[in-house]
Amino acid sequence: MLDERSMDLKLSLEYDGAPFVGWQVQAQGRSVQGELQAAIERLCGAPSGSVRVTGAGRTDAGVHARGQVASLTAPPAARPLPLKAWTSGLNALLPPEIASVRAEVAPPGFDARRWARGKRYVYSIVNRPLRSPLARGRAWEIRRPLDDAEMRLALPHLLGRHDFSALRAADCPARTTVREIRSISLSRAGDVLRLEIEATAFLKHMVRNIVGTLVEVGHGRRDPDGLPALLACRDRTCAGPTAPPHGLVLDEVFYLPGNADPRALVAGGGESDD
Amino acid sequence: MLDERSMDLKLSLEYDGAPFVGWQVQAQGRSVQGELQAAIERLCGAPSGSVRVTGAGRTDAGVHARGQVASLTAPPAARPLPLKAWTSGLNALLPPEIASVRAEVAPPGFDARRWARGKRYVYSIVNRPLRSPLARGRAWEIRRPLDDAEMRLALPHLLGRHDFSALRAADCPARTTVREIRSISLSRAGDVLRLEIEATAFLKHMVRNIVGTLVEVGHGRRDPDGLPALLACRDRTCAGPTAPPHGLVLDEVFYLPGNADPRALVAGGGESDD
Repeated sequence: MLDERSMDLKLSLEYDGAPFVGWQVQAQGRSVQGELQAAIERLCGAPSGSVRVTGAGRTDAGVHARGQVASLTAPPAARPLPLKAWTSGLNALLPPEIASVRAEVAPPGFDARRWARGKRYVYSIVNRPLRSPLARGRAWEIRRPLDDAEMRLALPHLLGRHDFSALRAADCPARTTVREIRSISLSRAGDVLRLEIEATAFLKHMVRNIVGTLVEVGHGRRDPDGLPALLACRDRTCAGPTAPPHGLVLDEVFYLPGNADPRALVAGGGESDD
Repeated sequence: MLDERSMDLKLSLEYDGAPFVGWQVQAQGRSVQGELQAAIERLCGAPSGSVRVTGAGRTDAGVHARGQVASLTAPPAARPLPLKAWTSGLNALLPPEIASVRAEVAPPGFDARRWARGKRYVYSIVNRPLRSPLARGRAWEIRRPLDDAEMRLALPHLLGRHDFSALRAADCPARTTVREIRSISLSRAGDVLRLEIEATAFLKHMVRNIVGTLVEVGHGRRDPDGLPALLACRDRTCAGPTAPPHGLVLDEVFYLPGNADPRALVAGGGESDD
């Protein structure tokens, strides 16, 4: 049995974002963070409002997750809980749209957001003339044909280290705007386009603004070779519209081996705001 | 412009079966057939209760479709409707869980059920110890590990022409019980198992009873080489439980080229009851 007193935990979460106001607790509405905190308080018999979890990514309303990561310090307990309580046990107390899919004991001070070394998001588009009830709420449905070959020509311009000011939300609070996209790819299987994008960190709405801009390229309304100029202008109004949230999934968050503290290393992750 | 008077139509439908009592109109509850008939009556300005559509497969409550086929004789119209009205136009009148994804003019007398030459169903299982919010309502979630290699050993015994009495619902109304499975395959991608099964026609609950039986094989509770004896016993109580409906999708229905009348050919399709 583990001694739960002052134990730091790393929880991996899958959720369907549809019914939530997003990850973060808001004044109104159900949030993933709020539901998770309430379930942990019930699991541990802790007072309401006493548990605080940190999420690696502050997913917006409607955004899904397959591998969101949350950190917390387990409330002090008379009887220590086995790790299984933090998956199966917690799932019995969570709403059906949220599940804890992995629980690990983390190093002291583990912070899911600050210690993250990268994230991968996946964005899905269904591209066909008629709507798809089976893709509803899980993909952006675009009726007009998209030229995915043309869209793919834009990707190398986004790869690497850039100032992504032009592709962040107007109200993005990040102080620094340079991020590094480590990989970006677009695949098509029949009607379904899938954009995978991995970066050290993301600015607010960065993935959705990239998708909105790529869709303009796919519709022939923007030149794929115009992307360097777009980044250079650093102005949100130069970019395409923000793609809807329900096509987006936070797929995975990366950490150092053993979920180690990265502050010993040279800084490189930057802030993580999306 | 087409002359719509007495025109026979073939509509391909995609639907999320979750909110419906099934394909067929029931005394209580919303059915796919009922919603479709009501939308067509509105589209054509036809009196309520005047339109009758026939579905290729009578999908049960909760079963989804990617390629259900419905046939109907379009109501007489002063102004003929273009084919686009039977997709985009109809979709504007259908609930979001149902869409008409293709409309074709069919030969006179076209009957989606009787003229079908085969169907393909896909059944999805998510096999992992913890639940999956993103698979919820679209796959059977099975916690205990399934040995899919063992399950695959059972498949050749089902392939071909057999009496499937042991694998039909107790209340299955079909007079004949011999059906031909043309292809059956089971694939695994990570946690997801996918059974594809194509047959001339299916008995009621046949796919779901096959899945329930295969899951017993995957859990080591049934020998894959016991399948011939199971078929031979012709008794429903010999088979495994009925898998839940929400993992099942009616993927495609097959017809002769040009949606031609198969009655000119030697009989081989049998009844189509699932």
